[in-house]
Amino acid sequence: MKAMILDEKLNFLWSDVPDPVRKDNEVLIEVHAAAVNRADLMQKDGCYASPPDWPQWCGLEVSGIVLEAPADASVKPGDKVCALVGGGGYSEKIAVPAGMVVPIPEGLSLIEAASIPEVWCTVYLNLMLEAGGMKPGDVFYMQAGASGVGLAAIQFAKSMGAEVITTIDSPEKAEFVKKLGADYVLDYRTEDVRKVIEEHNPTVALDCIGGKLMGDCFKNMVFGGRWIMIATMAGAETTINLETVWRKRIRLIGSTLRSRTSEEKCRIMQALYNDIFPLFTAGKLITNIHAVFPIQEVEAAHGVLRRAENIGKVVLTFK
Amino acid sequence: MKAMILDEKLNFLWSDVPDPVRKDNEVLIEVHAAAVNRADLMQKDGCYASPPDWPQWCGLEVSGIVLEAPADASVKPGDKVCALVGGGGYSEKIAVPAGMVVPIPEGLSLIEAASIPEVWCTVYLNLMLEAGGMKPGDVFYMQAGASGVGLAAIQFAKSMGAEVITTIDSPEKAEFVKKLGADYVLDYRTEDVRKVIEEHNPTVALDCIGGKLMGDCFKNMVFGGRWIMIATMAGAETTINLETVWRKRIRLIGSTLRSRTSEEKCRIMQALYNDIFPLFTAGKLITNIHAVFPIQEVEAAHGVLRRAENIGKVVLTFK
Repeated sequence: MKAMILDEKLNFLWSDVPDPVRKDNEVLIEVHAAAVNRADLMQKDGCYASPPDWPQWCGLEVSGIVLEAPADASVKPGDKVCALVGGGGYSEKIAVPAGMVVPIPEGLSLIEAASIPEVWCTVYLNLMLEAGGMKPGDVFYMQAGASGVGLAAIQFAKSMGAEVITTIDSPEKAEFVKKLGADYVLDYRTEDVRKVIEEHNPTVALDCIGGKLMGDCFKNMVFGGRWIMIATMAGAETTINLETVWRKRIRLIGSTLRSRTSEEKCRIMQALYNDIFPLFTAGKLITNIHAVFPIQEVEAAHGVLRRAENIGKVVLTFK
Repeated sequence: MKAMILDEKLNFLWSDVPDPVRKDNEVLIEVHAAAVNRADLMQKDGCYASPPDWPQWCGLEVSGIVLEAPADASVKPGDKVCALVGGGGYSEKIAVPAGMVVPIPEGLSLIEAASIPEVWCTVYLNLMLEAGGMKPGDVFYMQAGASGVGLAAIQFAKSMGAEVITTIDSPEKAEFVKKLGADYVLDYRTEDVRKVIEEHNPTVALDCIGGKLMGDCFKNMVFGGRWIMIATMAGAETTINLETVWRKRIRLIGSTLRSRTSEEKCRIMQALYNDIFPLFTAGKLITNIHAVFPIQEVEAAHGVLRRAENIGKVVLTFK
C-alpha cells in the first residue's frame, strides 16, 4: 500500500510501505479520508512522535470501509466506519484496535465522519472526564474557538447549558462561532480578553494556546475552577499566581489524548458513539469541513492549519 | 469564657466573650490545648479570616474534655477528645460538629493530641484524596520537612512505601527528618534542590513554599505527576512551563483544608480516627511537640513559627 510517510529530513513522501498486519483484536480499514490535526503539524516538525506500536507517520483519525474484523467486533467487513488512531492515519490501510472503530453517524459522509474522532474525543475526555463534567451555570473559556476542537468544545459546552467565552481572529470566524451559541466572542488581536475573564470568571477552560495570556487569566478562574492544557501554540512559559491556586482551590490539568492507553481510547470512542453520534444524526451537532485535499496535496492542507485560516476541519482523501 | 481574640488593630487580647451555644449536632468541648498553625499567623496578619459560622479568631485544632454532646454522638461528656475546627480554637470552650470530634489516641496526652488534627487532616486529604493515594515506587517531594505538616507528610509517605525528598534549614532539622526515614534531605540554603529534583523526578509534591523554586522543579515531575499547593511562604508568583504540563499530563492542584465543608472535614477526621490514630498508639507514628506555651504567651508561641525555629508543633495550653 501507499502511505504519506516522513523521510529522514521530515519531508512528506508518498511511498510504498508494507500492508499492516491485523492482530486478532484489530479491525483493518481501507482508508477513505483522514483529517488534519495540529498534532500532525508537530509530528511533521519532528517534535511529536507516534506512540510505540503505531506507524511513525502522521494521522490521528480516519474514516473508511472495514476490510477485516474480529468475529466478535461490533463492525463487519463492508461497514462504513471512523476511528481514532495513535498515528499513521495518512495511509491507504490501517489496523486499529476494534474498540476504537465505530460506524459513522447515520446521515454523514465519510469525509465528515473522518473529522469527528480526534476533536470530539478530546472534548469528551477533557470536558467530561478531566473537568468532572459540565453543567448549567458553568462558564467555559476556550481559545481558538473556530479551530476543529474549538467548534466541538463550544457545541458541547452549549449543549450542557454552559456559558461560553471564546477567542477568534477574523470576522468570519466570529460569525461562525456566534451561530453555534458562543456568548462572548473576542478578537484577541483587538479586544481585551483579560478584562472579560476578570468579569466572567471561568469555571472550566480548555487551552491550546498558553503563553503569557494564560497566566493572566488563570488567576481569575472561579473557586474550584479547572484549567485544562492541551497545547501551547502561543508559547510554553507563563507566570502564574500560586496563592490564587491554593486559596481558590484551582486545578491546572495537563492532558493529551495521544498518550492514553488503547483501553482508555476505546472507552472514549464508545462513549462518543453512544452519546454524541446520535446528536450529529439529529442535526443538533455539526462538523464543519473547511477544505478537502487529496492526500498528495498534504503540504497545502497543512498550510491552511499553519496559517490558522480554517474554520473547523481540513480533510485529506485517499480515493 | 475567655478567648484570645484579635482586636480591631489585629492585636491579641485575652478577653471575656459569650460562651458558645451548642447546636443539636455539636459537641461542646472544654479546651485544654490548641496547637499553632501557619494559618493562625496569616489570620493574625489579617489575611486569612475564619469561614462563616466559626469564631473570628485563631485556632484550627484543639483537645479537651467533652462537656455536652448529642445523645447519638460517638463521644460523651467526660471523654478526652481532639477536634478539627474552622476557627476559634484559641478559647476556653468551643462547639464543634460531632463528626469533627474524636477520642484522642490511646496513650497520648491532651497536648500531643491537640497537635494532630490539622496537619494530619491536611496530609490525609492531600496525599490520599487529592493525589489519588500514594504507593511503593512513588517519589514524594515535601519542602519544609521539619514543619508540623512536613513531619506528618514524611511519616505518611514512608508508611506507604514512597521515597521522600525534603528540605530543611538546620542540621538539627536534618537529623530529625532523617530519623523519620526521609531519603534525600537538602538544606535549601546551601544545596542544589533543583538538581536533586531533576535526577529524582517526583510523582507527588506537597508544597507550602511556592516561589521561583516551584516553577523550576514543577517541570521535572514524572509523567502523570501531581503537585499540590497548600501555601506560598516564599512568594506567590512563579514561572512554569506549560508544554511540560500537557506533554507529561502533570496536575497542579490548589488545596486548602479550611475552606472545605463540615461534611468533608467530618469524613477526614473519621478516616484519621480509624486509619491513623491506631498507628500513634502502636508507636509507629509520632507527633513532635517542639514547645508548649500558656495561651497568654501566644505572641511568643507565634514567634517560634514566624522564625521557623520549630521541629514539629507548638502548642498552647488553657489549664
